[in-house]
Amino acid sequence: MRIANRSSRLVLISGDRALDVELASEGRFGSDPQAVYADWEEFIEWARQQDASSGERYEAAELDAAVPRPPQVFAIGLNYASHAGESGFAVPTDPVVFTKFVSSFTGPDVDVALTGDAVDWEAELVAVIGTGGRDIPEDEAWHHVAGLTVGQDLSDRTVQFWGHPPQFSLGKSRARFAPVGPTVVTIDEVGAAADPSDLRVRCTLTRADGSSEVLQDGRTRDMIFTVPVLIARLSAVVELLPGDVIFTGTPEGVGHGRTPRVYLAPGDELTTEVEGVGLITQRFCAAG
Amino acid sequence: MRIANRSSRLVLISGDRALDVELASEGRFGSDPQAVYADWEEFIEWARQQDASSGERYEAAELDAAVPRPPQVFAIGLNYASHAGESGFAVPTDPVVFTKFVSSFTGPDVDVALTGDAVDWEAELVAVIGTGGRDIPEDEAWHHVAGLTVGQDLSDRTVQFWGHPPQFSLGKSRARFAPVGPTVVTIDEVGAAADPSDLRVRCTLTRADGSSEVLQDGRTRDMIFTVPVLIARLSAVVELLPGDVIFTGTPEGVGHGRTPRVYLAPGDELTTEVEGVGLITQRFCAAG
Repeated sequence: MRIANRSSRLVLISGDRALDVELASEGRFGSDPQAVYADWEEFIEWARQQDASSGERYEAAELDAAVPRPPQVFAIGLNYASHAGESGFAVPTDPVVFTKFVSSFTGPDVDVALTGDAVDWEAELVAVIGTGGRDIPEDEAWHHVAGLTVGQDLSDRTVQFWGHPPQFSLGKSRARFAPVGPTVVTIDEVGAAADPSDLRVRCTLTRADGSSEVLQDGRTRDMIFTVPVLIARLSAVVELLPGDVIFTGTPEGVGHGRTPRVYLAPGDELTTEVEGVGLITQRFCAAG
Repeated sequence: MRIANRSSRLVLISGDRALDVELASEGRFGSDPQAVYADWEEFIEWARQQDASSGERYEAAELDAAVPRPPQVFAIGLNYASHAGESGFAVPTDPVVFTKFVSSFTGPDVDVALTGDAVDWEAELVAVIGTGGRDIPEDEAWHHVAGLTVGQDLSDRTVQFWGHPPQFSLGKSRARFAPVGPTVVTIDEVGAAADPSDLRVRCTLTRADGSSEVLQDGRTRDMIFTVPVLIARLSAVVELLPGDVIFTGTPEGVGHGRTPRVYLAPGDELTTEVEGVGLITQRFCAAG
Protein backbone atom coordinates (compact mmCIF):
# COMPACT_ATOMS: atom_id res chain seq x y z
CA MET A 1 0.00 0.00 0.00
CA ARG A 2 1.20 3.49 -0.89
CA ILE A 3 -0.35 6.61 0.60
CA ALA A 4 0.36 10.20 -0.34
CA ASN A 5 -0.60 13.84 0.07
CA ARG A 6 -2.20 15.13 -3.13
CA SER A 7 -2.90 18.86 -2.89
CA SER A 8 -3.35 18.52 0.90
CA ARG A 9 -5.70 15.52 0.61
CA LEU A 10 -4.93 11.99 1.72
CA VAL A 11 -4.88 9.53 -1.19
CA LEU A 12 -4.05 5.90 -1.92
CA ILE A 13 -1.71 5.51 -4.88
CA SER A 14 -1.56 2.81 -7.52
CA GLY A 15 0.65 3.57 -10.53
CA ASP A 16 -0.52 6.92 -11.94
CA ARG A 17 -3.83 6.77 -10.08
CA ALA A 18 -4.80 8.39 -6.79
CA LEU A 19 -7.89 7.37 -4.80
CA ASP A 20 -9.21 10.10 -2.48
CA VAL A 21 -9.55 8.53 0.97
CA GLU A 22 -12.26 10.79 2.40
CA LEU A 23 -14.46 10.33 -0.67
CA ALA A 24 -13.82 6.60 -1.05
CA SER A 25 -14.47 5.96 2.65
CA GLU A 26 -17.57 8.19 2.61
CA GLY A 27 -16.10 10.28 5.40
CA ARG A 28 -15.04 7.43 7.68
CA PHE A 29 -11.47 8.73 7.30
CA GLY A 30 -10.73 12.42 6.91
CA SER A 31 -8.75 14.19 4.21
CA ASP A 32 -5.79 15.25 6.39
CA PRO A 33 -2.61 13.36 5.36
CA GLN A 34 -1.17 13.93 8.84
CA ALA A 35 -4.20 12.94 10.94
CA VAL A 36 -4.42 9.43 9.45
CA TYR A 37 -1.69 8.09 11.75
CA ALA A 38 -3.88 8.57 14.83
CA ASP A 39 -6.11 5.74 13.53
CA TRP A 40 -3.45 3.87 11.63
CA GLU A 41 -4.47 0.26 12.33
CA GLU A 42 -8.10 0.89 11.48
CA PHE A 43 -7.15 2.90 8.43
CA ILE A 44 -4.74 0.41 6.94
CA GLU A 45 -7.20 -2.45 7.39
CA TRP A 46 -9.74 -0.46 5.37
CA ALA A 47 -7.12 0.66 2.82
CA ARG A 48 -6.06 -2.89 2.03
CA GLN A 49 -9.57 -3.60 0.76
CA GLN A 50 -9.55 -0.69 -1.70
CA ASP A 51 -8.56 -0.69 -5.35
CA ALA A 52 -6.56 2.50 -5.79
CA SER A 53 -6.27 1.91 -9.52
CA SER A 54 -9.90 3.03 -9.75
CA GLY A 55 -8.80 6.55 -8.69
CA GLU A 56 -8.08 9.64 -10.77
CA ARG A 57 -4.94 10.21 -12.78
CA TYR A 58 -2.49 12.51 -10.97
CA GLU A 59 0.79 14.25 -11.75
CA ALA A 60 3.89 14.02 -9.54
CA ALA A 61 3.91 17.81 -9.13
CA GLU A 62 0.54 17.65 -7.35
CA LEU A 63 2.06 15.79 -4.40
CA ASP A 64 2.97 17.65 -1.22
CA ALA A 65 5.07 16.37 1.68
CA ALA A 66 3.90 12.79 2.26
CA VAL A 67 3.91 13.52 6.01
CA PRO A 68 3.33 17.28 6.21
CA ARG A 69 3.32 18.15 9.92
CA PRO A 70 4.88 15.44 12.07
CA PRO A 71 4.49 16.21 15.78
CA GLN A 72 8.10 15.11 16.28
CA VAL A 73 10.89 14.87 13.72
CA PHE A 74 13.89 12.81 14.79
CA ALA A 75 16.93 13.09 12.57
CA ILE A 76 19.92 10.83 13.17
CA GLY A 77 23.42 12.16 12.65
CA LEU A 78 26.44 10.11 11.62
CA ASN A 79 24.50 6.83 11.34
CA TYR A 80 26.78 5.28 8.72
CA ALA A 81 30.42 4.71 9.72
CA SER A 82 31.69 5.87 6.33
CA HIS A 83 29.77 9.18 6.64
CA ALA A 84 30.98 9.75 10.21
CA GLY A 85 34.51 9.33 8.89
CA GLU A 86 34.14 11.75 5.97
CA SER A 87 32.58 14.28 8.40
CA GLY A 88 35.55 14.11 10.74
CA PHE A 89 33.62 12.64 13.65
CA ALA A 90 33.93 9.42 15.63
CA VAL A 91 31.51 6.55 14.99
CA PRO A 92 28.81 7.14 17.63
CA THR A 93 28.08 4.60 20.36
CA ASP A 94 24.69 6.23 21.13
CA PRO A 95 22.34 7.78 18.54
CA VAL A 96 23.09 11.43 17.67
CA VAL A 97 19.60 12.98 17.51
CA PHE A 98 18.64 16.39 16.18
CA THR A 99 15.50 17.70 14.47
CA LYS A 100 14.41 19.30 11.22
CA PHE A 101 11.89 22.02 12.12
CA VAL A 102 8.58 21.28 10.46
CA SER A 103 8.32 24.53 8.48
CA SER A 104 11.08 23.05 6.28
CA PHE A 105 8.89 20.14 5.07
CA THR A 106 7.92 20.10 1.41
CA GLY A 107 6.84 17.84 -1.44
CA PRO A 108 8.79 15.29 -3.47
CA ASP A 109 9.19 17.33 -6.67
CA VAL A 110 10.02 20.97 -5.93
CA ASP A 111 12.22 23.96 -6.65
CA VAL A 112 14.43 24.96 -3.72
CA ALA A 113 16.07 28.37 -3.28
CA LEU A 114 19.73 28.17 -2.25
CA THR A 115 19.53 30.31 0.87
CA GLY A 116 22.86 30.06 2.63
CA ASP A 117 26.18 29.68 0.84
CA ALA A 118 27.01 26.06 1.64
CA VAL A 119 23.94 23.92 0.93
CA ASP A 120 24.67 20.21 0.90
CA TRP A 121 22.75 16.98 0.18
CA GLU A 122 22.03 13.99 2.41
CA ALA A 123 19.96 11.16 0.92
CA GLU A 124 17.95 9.32 3.58
CA LEU A 125 15.46 6.61 4.26
CA VAL A 126 12.65 8.07 6.40
CA ALA A 127 10.54 5.89 8.71
CA VAL A 128 7.01 7.04 9.59
CA ILE A 129 5.55 6.00 12.95
CA GLY A 130 2.01 4.60 12.99
CA THR A 131 1.24 3.41 16.49
CA GLY A 132 3.36 5.33 19.00
CA GLY A 133 4.55 4.37 22.44
CA ARG A 134 7.34 4.26 24.98
CA ASP A 135 9.91 1.54 25.61
CA ILE A 136 9.19 -0.28 22.36
CA PRO A 137 11.28 -3.48 22.18
CA GLU A 138 13.54 -3.83 19.16
CA ASP A 139 11.79 -7.02 18.06
CA GLU A 140 8.40 -5.27 17.96
CA ALA A 141 9.65 -2.04 16.38
CA TRP A 142 8.67 -2.73 12.76
CA HIS A 143 5.03 -3.07 13.88
CA HIS A 144 5.16 0.58 14.96
CA VAL A 145 6.27 1.73 11.50
CA ALA A 146 3.37 2.81 9.27
CA GLY A 147 5.68 2.87 6.29
CA LEU A 148 8.85 4.16 4.70
CA THR A 149 9.42 7.18 2.52
CA VAL A 150 12.31 9.05 0.91
CA GLY A 151 13.83 12.22 2.38
CA GLN A 152 16.53 14.72 1.61
CA ASP A 153 18.17 16.16 4.72
CA LEU A 154 19.30 19.35 2.96
CA SER A 155 21.82 21.16 5.13
CA ASP A 156 23.24 24.68 5.33
CA ARG A 157 26.67 23.66 6.60
CA THR A 158 27.50 27.17 7.84
CA VAL A 159 24.47 27.44 10.13
CA GLN A 160 24.72 23.74 11.08
CA PHE A 161 28.10 24.35 12.66
CA TRP A 162 27.21 27.56 14.52
CA GLY A 163 28.35 27.47 18.12
CA HIS A 164 30.25 25.04 20.28
CA PRO A 165 29.06 22.37 20.56
CA PRO A 166 27.28 22.84 17.22
CA GLN A 167 23.57 21.95 17.23
CA PHE A 168 22.61 20.69 13.79
CA SER A 169 18.86 21.40 13.74
CA LEU A 170 18.63 25.03 12.61
CA GLY A 171 20.90 24.72 9.58
CA LYS A 172 18.85 21.77 8.37
CA SER A 173 15.56 23.66 8.48
CA ARG A 174 15.63 26.39 5.85
CA ALA A 175 12.59 26.63 3.56
CA ARG A 176 12.05 23.37 1.65
CA PHE A 177 15.11 21.73 3.20
CA ALA A 178 13.04 18.65 4.13
CA PRO A 179 11.45 17.16 1.00
CA VAL A 180 9.64 13.90 1.85
CA GLY A 181 7.74 11.54 -0.41
CA PRO A 182 6.49 10.76 -2.92
CA THR A 183 4.50 8.17 -0.93
CA VAL A 184 4.56 6.39 2.39
CA VAL A 185 5.01 2.72 1.49
CA THR A 186 3.93 0.01 3.93
CA ILE A 187 6.57 -2.51 4.99
CA ASP A 188 4.80 -5.42 3.30
CA GLU A 189 4.81 -3.52 0.01
CA VAL A 190 8.49 -2.61 0.33
CA GLY A 191 9.16 -6.24 1.24
CA ALA A 192 7.55 -7.51 -1.96
CA ALA A 193 10.34 -5.83 -3.96
CA ALA A 194 13.32 -5.70 -1.58
CA ASP A 195 14.54 -6.42 1.95
CA PRO A 196 13.29 -3.54 4.15
CA SER A 197 16.44 -3.94 6.29
CA ASP A 198 18.79 -3.62 3.33
CA LEU A 199 17.66 -0.95 0.87
CA ARG A 200 19.89 0.81 -1.62
CA VAL A 201 19.98 4.61 -1.06
CA ARG A 202 21.23 6.64 -4.01
CA CYS A 203 21.54 10.30 -4.82
CA THR A 204 22.37 11.69 -8.26
CA LEU A 205 23.19 15.25 -9.31
CA THR A 206 22.59 16.64 -12.77
CA ARG A 207 24.36 19.96 -13.29
CA ALA A 208 23.16 22.83 -15.46
CA ASP A 209 25.60 21.75 -18.21
CA GLY A 210 23.87 18.36 -18.42
CA SER A 211 26.67 16.38 -16.77
CA SER A 212 25.54 13.85 -14.21
CA GLU A 213 27.21 12.22 -11.19
CA VAL A 214 26.17 9.63 -8.62
CA LEU A 215 26.93 11.38 -5.32
CA GLN A 216 25.85 8.76 -2.80
CA ASP A 217 25.26 5.03 -3.19
CA GLY A 218 24.82 3.17 0.08
CA ARG A 219 22.76 0.44 1.69
CA THR A 220 20.66 0.69 4.85
CA ARG A 221 22.22 -2.52 6.21
CA ASP A 222 25.28 -0.37 6.89
CA MET A 223 23.44 1.83 9.39
CA ILE A 224 25.09 1.85 12.81
CA PHE A 225 21.64 2.01 14.43
CA THR A 226 19.04 0.18 12.30
CA VAL A 227 15.40 1.28 12.14
CA PRO A 228 14.34 -1.19 14.91
CA VAL A 229 17.28 -0.16 17.09
CA LEU A 230 16.50 3.53 16.58
CA ILE A 231 12.86 2.99 17.57
CA ALA A 232 13.94 1.10 20.68
CA ARG A 233 16.58 3.67 21.65
CA LEU A 234 14.41 6.72 20.97
CA SER A 235 11.32 5.32 22.69
CA ALA A 236 13.40 4.49 25.76
CA VAL A 237 13.76 8.26 26.23
CA VAL A 238 10.79 9.97 24.53
CA GLU A 239 7.26 8.90 23.69
CA LEU A 240 6.86 8.24 19.97
CA LEU A 241 3.65 9.77 18.61
CA PRO A 242 1.54 8.71 15.61
CA GLY A 243 2.85 10.47 12.51
CA ASP A 244 6.34 11.12 13.90
CA VAL A 245 9.13 10.64 11.39
CA ILE A 246 12.71 9.46 11.71
CA PHE A 247 15.29 10.66 9.17
CA THR A 248 17.60 7.69 9.58
CA GLY A 249 20.90 9.26 8.51
CA THR A 250 22.88 9.43 5.30
CA PRO A 251 25.61 7.25 3.76
CA GLU A 252 28.94 8.68 2.63
CA GLY A 253 29.30 11.04 -0.29
CA VAL A 254 28.10 14.43 0.97
CA GLY A 255 29.69 17.58 -0.47
CA HIS A 256 31.08 18.75 2.86
CA GLY A 257 33.19 15.58 3.10
CA ARG A 258 34.96 16.15 -0.25
CA THR A 259 38.29 17.79 -0.99
CA PRO A 260 37.71 20.48 -2.06
CA ARG A 261 34.23 20.79 -0.58
CA VAL A 262 31.35 20.84 -3.07
CA TYR A 263 27.97 22.47 -2.53
CA LEU A 264 24.77 22.77 -4.55
CA ALA A 265 24.61 25.47 -7.23
CA PRO A 266 21.77 27.16 -9.13
CA GLY A 267 20.67 24.94 -12.01
CA ASP A 268 21.50 21.69 -10.21
CA GLU A 269 18.89 18.94 -10.13
CA LEU A 270 19.12 16.34 -7.38
CA THR A 271 17.37 12.97 -7.40
CA THR A 272 17.26 10.72 -4.36
CA GLU A 273 16.05 7.14 -4.58
CA VAL A 274 15.44 4.48 -1.98
CA GLU A 275 15.04 0.99 -3.41
CA GLY A 276 11.44 -0.24 -3.21
CA VAL A 277 10.27 3.06 -1.73
CA GLY A 278 10.51 5.79 -4.34
CA LEU A 279 12.34 8.75 -5.82
CA ILE A 280 12.26 12.50 -5.11
CA THR A 281 13.68 15.43 -7.10
CA GLN A 282 14.74 18.97 -6.24
CA ARG A 283 15.76 21.69 -8.66
CA PHE A 284 17.93 24.41 -7.11
CA CYS A 285 17.78 28.12 -7.92
CA ALA A 286 19.49 31.21 -6.58
CA ALA A 287 17.94 32.81 -3.49
CA GLY A 288 15.61 35.65 -4.47
CA MET B 1 -4.29 39.41 29.59
CA ARG B 2 -3.47 35.91 30.79
CA ILE B 3 -4.56 32.83 28.91
CA ALA B 4 -4.23 29.23 30.00
CA ASN B 5 -5.07 25.60 29.32
CA ARG B 6 -7.58 24.34 31.88
CA SER B 7 -8.22 20.62 31.40
CA SER B 8 -7.50 20.96 27.66
CA ARG B 9 -9.78 24.01 27.22
CA LEU B 10 -8.64 27.52 26.43
CA VAL B 11 -9.45 29.98 29.23
CA LEU B 12 -8.83 33.60 30.17
CA ILE B 13 -7.48 33.94 33.71
CA SER B 14 -8.12 36.66 36.28
CA GLY B 15 -6.93 35.87 39.80
CA ASP B 16 -8.53 32.57 40.79
CA ARG B 17 -11.14 32.75 38.01
CA ALA B 18 -11.06 31.14 34.57
CA LEU B 19 -13.38 32.19 31.74
CA ASP B 20 -13.97 29.47 29.13
CA VAL B 21 -13.23 31.03 25.74
CA GLU B 22 -15.42 28.82 23.56
CA LEU B 23 -18.45 29.32 25.78
CA ALA B 24 -17.89 33.05 26.36
CA SER B 25 -17.36 33.67 22.64
CA GLU B 26 -20.36 31.51 21.72
CA GLY B 27 -18.15 29.38 19.51
CA ARG B 28 -16.39 32.21 17.68
CA PHE B 29 -13.13 30.88 19.13
CA GLY B 30 -12.61 27.17 19.71
CA SER B 31 -11.57 25.37 22.88
CA ASP B 32 -8.10 24.26 21.72
CA PRO B 33 -5.35 26.10 23.65
CA GLN B 34 -2.93 25.49 20.79
CA ALA B 35 -5.17 26.53 17.87
CA VAL B 36 -5.77 30.05 19.23
CA TYR B 37 -2.45 31.34 17.86
CA ALA B 38 -3.61 30.87 14.26
CA ASP B 39 -6.07 33.76 14.82
CA TRP B 40 -4.10 35.58 17.46
CA GLU B 41 -4.79 39.21 16.50
CA GLU B 42 -8.53 38.65 16.18
CA PHE B 43 -8.59 36.62 19.39
CA ILE B 44 -6.70 39.06 21.54
CA GLU B 45 -8.86 41.98 20.38
CA TRP B 46 -11.92 40.03 21.51
CA ALA B 47 -10.24 38.86 24.73
CA ARG B 48 -9.42 42.41 25.82
CA GLN B 49 -13.13 43.17 25.95
CA GLN B 50 -13.91 40.28 28.31
CA ASP B 51 -14.08 40.28 32.10
CA ALA B 52 -12.36 37.05 33.10
CA SER B 53 -13.21 37.64 36.76
CA SER B 54 -16.76 36.57 35.86
CA GLY B 55 -15.44 33.05 35.17
CA GLU B 56 -15.42 29.94 37.35
CA ARG B 57 -13.04 29.33 40.24
CA TYR B 58 -10.21 27.00 39.25
CA GLU B 59 -7.34 25.20 40.99
CA ALA B 60 -3.71 25.38 39.82
CA ALA B 61 -3.62 21.58 39.44
CA GLU B 62 -6.30 21.79 36.71
CA LEU B 63 -3.93 23.62 34.38
CA ASP B 64 -2.13 21.74 31.61
CA ALA B 65 0.79 22.99 29.49
CA ALA B 66 -0.09 26.59 28.59
CA VAL B 67 1.04 25.83 25.03
CA PRO B 68 0.49 22.09 24.66
CA ARG B 69 1.60 21.20 21.11
CA PRO B 70 3.80 23.89 19.54
CA PRO B 71 4.53 23.10 15.89
CA GLN B 72 8.13 24.15 16.52
CA VAL B 73 10.02 24.35 19.80
CA PHE B 74 13.23 26.36 19.70
CA ALA B 75 15.46 26.03 22.74
CA ILE B 76 18.51 28.25 23.08
CA GLY B 77 21.66 26.88 24.66
CA LEU B 78 24.27 28.87 26.55
CA ASN B 79 22.37 32.18 26.25
CA TYR B 80 23.78 33.71 29.44
CA ALA B 81 27.55 34.21 29.59
CA SER B 82 27.70 33.05 33.20
CA HIS B 83 25.93 29.78 32.32
CA ALA B 84 28.15 29.18 29.28
CA GLY B 85 31.11 29.55 31.62
CA GLU B 86 29.85 27.13 34.27
CA SER B 87 29.05 24.62 31.49
CA GLY B 88 32.60 24.74 30.16
CA PHE B 89 31.66 26.23 26.78
CA ALA B 90 32.62 29.43 25.00
CA VAL B 91 30.18 32.35 24.89
CA PRO B 92 28.39 31.79 21.56
CA THR B 93 28.56 34.32 18.76
CA ASP B 94 25.56 32.75 16.99
CA PRO B 95 22.50 31.24 18.71
CA VAL B 96 22.90 27.60 19.75
CA VAL B 97 19.50 26.09 18.86
CA PHE B 98 18.13 22.68 19.82
CA THR B 99 14.58 21.44 20.49
CA LYS B 100 12.54 19.88 23.24
CA PHE B 101 10.37 17.19 21.61
CA VAL B 102 6.72 17.97 22.19
CA SER B 103 5.83 14.74 23.99
CA SER B 104 7.81 16.19 26.93
CA PHE B 105 5.40 19.13 27.42
CA THR B 106 3.36 19.21 30.62
CA GLY B 107 1.51 21.49 33.01
CA PRO B 108 2.79 24.01 35.55
CA ASP B 109 2.15 21.96 38.72
CA VAL B 110 3.11 18.33 38.24
CA ASP B 111 4.95 15.29 39.59
CA VAL B 112 7.92 14.27 37.46
CA ALA B 113 9.56 10.82 37.54
CA LEU B 114 13.36 10.97 37.67
CA THR B 115 14.10 8.82 34.64
CA GLY B 116 17.81 9.00 33.97
CA ASP B 117 20.43 9.33 36.70
CA ALA B 118 21.52 12.94 36.19
CA VAL B 119 18.41 15.13 35.94
CA ASP B 120 19.15 18.84 36.19
CA TRP B 121 17.16 22.08 36.30
CA GLU B 122 17.20 25.08 33.97
CA ALA B 123 14.82 27.96 34.78
CA GLU B 124 13.76 29.81 31.62
CA LEU B 125 11.63 32.56 30.21
CA VAL B 126 9.58 31.15 27.32
CA ALA B 127 8.30 33.35 24.48
CA VAL B 128 5.19 32.26 22.58
CA ILE B 129 4.84 33.29 18.92
CA GLY B 130 1.50 34.74 17.82
CA THR B 131 1.86 35.95 14.25
CA GLY B 132 4.60 33.99 12.51
CA GLY B 133 6.80 34.93 9.59
CA ARG B 134 10.22 34.98 8.00
CA ASP B 135 12.91 37.66 8.22
CA ILE B 136 11.27 39.50 11.09
CA PRO B 137 13.25 42.66 11.91
CA GLU B 138 14.49 42.97 15.47
CA ASP B 139 12.55 46.21 15.99
CA GLU B 140 9.27 44.52 15.04
CA ALA B 141 9.91 41.28 16.92
CA TRP B 142 7.90 41.98 20.09
CA HIS B 143 4.78 42.38 17.91
CA HIS B 144 5.17 38.74 16.91
CA VAL B 145 5.15 37.56 20.53
CA ALA B 146 1.71 36.54 21.77
CA GLY B 147 2.99 36.45 25.31
CA LEU B 148 5.50 35.11 27.79
CA THR B 149 5.33 32.10 30.03
CA VAL B 150 7.57 30.19 32.45
CA GLY B 151 9.41 27.00 31.50
CA GLN B 152 11.71 24.45 33.06
CA ASP B 153 14.19 22.98 30.60
CA LEU B 154 14.68 19.77 32.60
CA SER B 155 17.72 17.92 31.29
CA ASP B 156 19.07 14.38 31.54
CA ARG B 157 22.74 15.34 31.37
CA THR B 158 23.84 11.81 30.43
CA VAL B 159 21.66 11.58 27.32
CA GLN B 160 22.23 15.28 26.51
CA PHE B 161 25.92 14.60 26.04
CA TRP B 162 25.59 11.42 23.98
CA GLY B 163 27.78 11.47 20.91
CA HIS B 164 30.27 13.85 19.44
CA PRO B 165 29.28 16.56 18.80
CA PRO B 166 26.56 16.11 21.44
CA GLN B 167 23.05 17.06 20.30
CA PHE B 168 21.11 18.35 23.29
CA SER B 169 17.52 17.68 22.19
CA LEU B 170 16.88 14.07 23.19
CA GLY B 171 18.13 14.35 26.78
CA LYS B 172 15.86 17.34 27.31
CA SER B 173 12.73 15.51 26.19
CA ARG B 174 11.95 12.79 28.70
CA ALA B 175 8.35 12.59 29.96
CA ARG B 176 7.30 15.87 31.63
CA PHE B 177 10.72 17.45 31.09
CA ALA B 178 9.08 20.57 29.58
CA PRO B 179 6.64 22.08 32.08
CA VAL B 180 5.24 25.38 30.74
CA GLY B 181 2.77 27.77 32.30
CA PRO B 182 0.83 28.58 34.33
CA THR B 183 -0.42 31.18 31.83
CA VAL B 184 0.68 32.96 28.68
CA VAL B 185 0.89 36.62 29.68
CA THR B 186 0.65 39.34 27.04
CA ILE B 187 3.51 41.82 26.84
CA ASP B 188 1.36 44.77 27.93
CA GLU B 189 0.34 42.89 31.06
CA VAL B 190 3.93 41.91 31.87
CA GLY B 191 4.90 45.53 31.22
CA ALA B 192 2.42 46.82 33.77
CA ALA B 193 4.46 45.11 36.52
CA ALA B 194 8.00 44.91 35.16
CA ASP B 195 10.26 45.62 32.18
CA PRO B 196 9.68 42.75 29.70
CA SER B 197 13.33 43.10 28.62
CA ASP B 198 14.67 42.74 32.15
CA LEU B 199 12.81 40.09 34.14
CA ARG B 200 14.15 38.31 37.18
CA VAL B 201 14.34 34.52 36.68
CA ARG B 202 14.60 32.47 39.85
CA CYS B 203 14.58 28.81 40.72
CA THR B 204 14.31 27.41 44.25
CA LEU B 205 14.71 23.84 45.48
CA THR B 206 13.07 22.47 48.61
CA ARG B 207 14.54 19.12 49.61
CA ALA B 208 12.69 16.27 51.32
CA ASP B 209 14.20 17.34 54.68
CA GLY B 210 12.53 20.75 54.37
CA SER B 211 15.73 22.68 53.62
CA SER B 212 15.47 25.22 50.84
CA GLU B 213 18.00 26.81 48.49
CA VAL B 214 17.84 29.42 45.74
CA LEU B 215 19.54 27.64 42.83
CA GLN B 216 19.33 30.28 40.10
CA ASP B 217 18.70 34.01 40.29
CA GLY B 218 19.33 35.88 37.06
CA ARG B 219 17.89 38.62 34.91
CA THR B 220 16.85 38.40 31.26
CA ARG B 221 18.78 41.60 30.45
CA ASP B 222 21.87 39.38 30.73
CA MET B 223 20.85 37.22 27.78
CA ILE B 224 23.47 37.16 25.02
CA PHE B 225 20.67 37.03 22.42
CA THR B 226 17.58 38.91 23.66
CA VAL B 227 14.05 37.87 22.71
CA PRO B 228 13.92 40.33 19.75
CA VAL B 229 17.38 39.26 18.56
CA LEU B 230 16.41 35.58 18.80
CA ILE B 231 13.26 36.19 16.76
CA ALA B 232 15.26 38.05 14.13
CA ARG B 233 18.03 35.44 14.00
CA LEU B 234 15.70 32.42 13.99
CA SER B 235 13.30 33.87 11.41
CA ALA B 236 16.25 34.66 9.12
CA VAL B 237 16.66 30.88 8.78
CA VAL B 238 13.30 29.23 9.48
CA GLU B 239 9.70 30.36 9.21
CA LEU B 240 8.19 31.02 12.63
CA LEU B 241 4.69 29.54 12.94
CA PRO B 242 1.79 30.64 15.17
CA GLY B 243 2.08 28.88 18.52
CA ASP B 244 5.80 28.17 18.26
CA VAL B 245 7.71 28.62 21.50
CA ILE B 246 11.23 29.74 22.28
CA PHE B 247 12.88 28.50 25.48
CA THR B 248 15.26 31.44 25.81
CA GLY B 249 18.05 29.82 27.82
CA THR B 250 18.95 29.63 31.48
CA PRO B 251 21.13 31.77 33.78
CA GLU B 252 23.94 30.30 35.87
CA GLY B 253 23.36 27.93 38.76
CA VAL B 254 22.54 24.56 37.19
CA GLY B 255 23.56 21.39 39.04
CA HIS B 256 25.87 20.19 36.27
CA GLY B 257 28.01 23.32 36.71
CA ARG B 258 28.67 22.73 40.41
CA THR B 259 31.61 21.03 42.12
CA PRO B 260 30.65 18.37 42.97
CA ARG B 261 27.79 18.10 40.51
CA VAL B 262 24.30 18.10 42.01
CA TYR B 263 21.19 16.53 40.45
CA LEU B 264 17.54 16.30 41.40
CA ALA B 265 16.54 13.61 43.91
CA PRO B 266 13.24 11.95 44.84
CA GLY B 267 11.35 14.19 47.26
CA ASP B 268 12.73 17.43 45.80
CA GLU B 269 10.31 20.23 44.94
CA LEU B 270 11.40 22.81 42.39
CA THR B 271 9.78 26.21 41.90
CA THR B 272 10.64 28.46 38.97
CA GLU B 273 9.49 32.05 38.83
CA VAL B 274 9.75 34.71 36.17
CA GLU B 275 8.98 38.22 37.40
CA GLY B 276 5.65 39.49 36.13
CA VAL B 277 4.93 36.21 34.36
CA GLY B 278 4.31 33.47 36.90
CA LEU B 279 5.55 30.49 38.86
CA ILE B 280 5.63 26.75 38.17
CA THR B 281 6.32 23.81 40.48
CA GLN B 282 7.54 20.25 39.98
CA ARG B 283 7.74 17.50 42.59
CA PHE B 284 10.22 14.75 41.76
CA CYS B 285 9.79 11.06 42.46
CA ALA B 286 11.78 7.94 41.70
CA ALA B 287 11.24 6.36 38.30
CA GLY B 288 8.66 3.55 38.57
